[in-house]
Amino acid sequence: MGKSNRELVDECDKFPYYQDSPAFYAAHLKKHHVFKVNGCDAVLGYILNSVMVKFQWPAEHWAVDSTNQTVTLITAADATPEQRSKVIAETLEAEAKRGDLEILKGWRNELYPVYAPGGEFLLEMERCAGPLFGIVSYGVHATCYVEDEQGLQFWVPRRSRTKQTYPGMLDNSVAGGMSTTERPFECLVREASEEASLPEGVVKATAKSVGCVSYFYVRDSRAGGETDLLQPEVEYVYDIKLGRDIVPKPGDNEVEEFKLYTVEETKQALANGEFKPNCAVVFIDFFIRHGILTPENEPDYYEIVTRMHRRFEFPTASHFAS
Amino acid sequence: MGKSNRELVDECDKFPYYQDSPAFYAAHLKKHHVFKVNGCDAVLGYILNSVMVKFQWPAEHWAVDSTNQTVTLITAADATPEQRSKVIAETLEAEAKRGDLEILKGWRNELYPVYAPGGEFLLEMERCAGPLFGIVSYGVHATCYVEDEQGLQFWVPRRSRTKQTYPGMLDNSVAGGMSTTERPFECLVREASEEASLPEGVVKATAKSVGCVSYFYVRDSRAGGETDLLQPEVEYVYDIKLGRDIVPKPGDNEVEEFKLYTVEETKQALANGEFKPNCAVVFIDFFIRHGILTPENEPDYYEIVTRMHRRFEFPTASHFAS
Repeated sequence: MGKSNRELVDECDKFPYYQDSPAFYAAHLKKHHVFKVNGCDAVLGYILNSVMVKFQWPAEHWAVDSTNQTVTLITAADATPEQRSKVIAETLEAEAKRGDLEILKGWRNELYPVYAPGGEFLLEMERCAGPLFGIVSYGVHATCYVEDEQGLQFWVPRRSRTKQTYPGMLDNSVAGGMSTTERPFECLVREASEEASLPEGVVKATAKSVGCVSYFYVRDSRAGGETDLLQPEVEYVYDIKLGRDIVPKPGDNEVEEFKLYTVEETKQALANGEFKPNCAVVFIDFFIRHGILTPENEPDYYEIVTRMHRRFEFPTASHFAS
Repeated sequence: MGKSNRELVDECDKFPYYQDSPAFYAAHLKKHHVFKVNGCDAVLGYILNSVMVKFQWPAEHWAVDSTNQTVTLITAADATPEQRSKVIAETLEAEAKRGDLEILKGWRNELYPVYAPGGEFLLEMERCAGPLFGIVSYGVHATCYVEDEQGLQFWVPRRSRTKQTYPGMLDNSVAGGMSTTERPFECLVREASEEASLPEGVVKATAKSVGCVSYFYVRDSRAGGETDLLQPEVEYVYDIKLGRDIVPKPGDNEVEEFKLYTVEETKQALANGEFKPNCAVVFIDFFIRHGILTPENEPDYYEIVTRMHRRFEFPTASHFAS
């Protein structure tokens, strides 16, 4: 039988919904502290209680309220993003040095942004620490495909077996995280070059922006580091239709090889659980947008569509180029 | 300036979200009774308190609990859908006869289904009564377009100025509600013939299933009948690419005329508020899937995408053809 598409979405969008059971949701939230920043009313992420107690929270920078289960960065209300980011960097570097948190051993030297309501940039923090705070992260995923008289086929890469996260699993043709200064299409061009050796000109001529998927991921052992860490994500999605003459090739050592998969082979690999969870979701989104999954052949159509477009309880980014 | 895309989505997806303000949400819910059916745990819809008090609820069929603000159909727990539907039909016919509820004057003789969790068919009720109970309704919307060297253009119909709901407003090329026995594609074929005079063969050869939009609409005066009635909707979405030789024509008296709109003309008509609210959302969805709206040119990209794929607190249909 294998996994249904709904089970694949369940694996990716794992955090409970208030509406499914207010009582269960409330009980589940109790396992977390909320992450806030002085001067901003919004909850920016959730910190697992088990992470909370492992962390040292220097009292000059952090207010920990155990009653309300809140951890607040207490920089001045009118602090600049640089000032907030500096304090967080110091805290995280000290934690990494102490070595109690497994996930911080995957330090990337990449900064991920956090936004206030209205898309105002609040601060940035080291990428690998994002799941400790449960902040929303952003990325791009693209599906490279060929479609001609031989049918529809997808360029599917296999992740390197030595990669820290999800080693050996199948991936989307191009995928990567967006750091603070990047915009989605810019990130796509960079990742397409790094991961699939696609020239900028090809990407600009062929890539089509087709939406975004969002889901509230809860990390399991395949992700590396502590389990149950929270990772709400927004992934901007692109379709890249290529001629048979353009063949993606690994551009760094993160990908082992690219292979052409038919629709049936892709469905089988999905059902086998061979894809990294969020990459499975991007394929399901492709199948829905391209009429491969329909309300008549997919029993959980509505549930799948809505679950992969989750609206978070946290403020999110705007990448509008004004 | 005109309306932004976000404002257009706001007009269609109007019911508050728990996550935006639990207190406001709770206070807002208090204006409603929940609609339940004996034998099923789920909340099936919301009934406005102002509607509640206008209704006569025959005590042999309905239990009204003012404390818990619940209206329950008390047919046997193992009643058949036919038995439940018959009781509701009697109640609704009596109400229509009494004439206190404006919306029941638009009696359609069309039956809309209500489902239990897992997609089990529970009952059906007269279409025009759906918003009184706030049940989820289902429909199909299709965008007919031409795309060639002259560019991308859409076939946009104007609703008849004598139509009861949204007279004179712009619409999607094909749109209609799904009654109990219909499946989405079947409904599309029927509506495409009735509303746009498109032959079944053309629809089957050209229509592509591309997802669904869902939103929690709250009726205003343009919808006719009482205002503030609730209308959570799932609309299955199709793209229909036509050659210049195929021209949609009004097939009944619901549509005044079809005209070709360029992307710019469509955007302008959207900003002018000329489209029926849910048809605006279907166009925004088209623009997102076709790379016309992107994260870089639409400031509220994520908010729009997630709001037009709302996951309801009510059970929904499955149209899986097993």
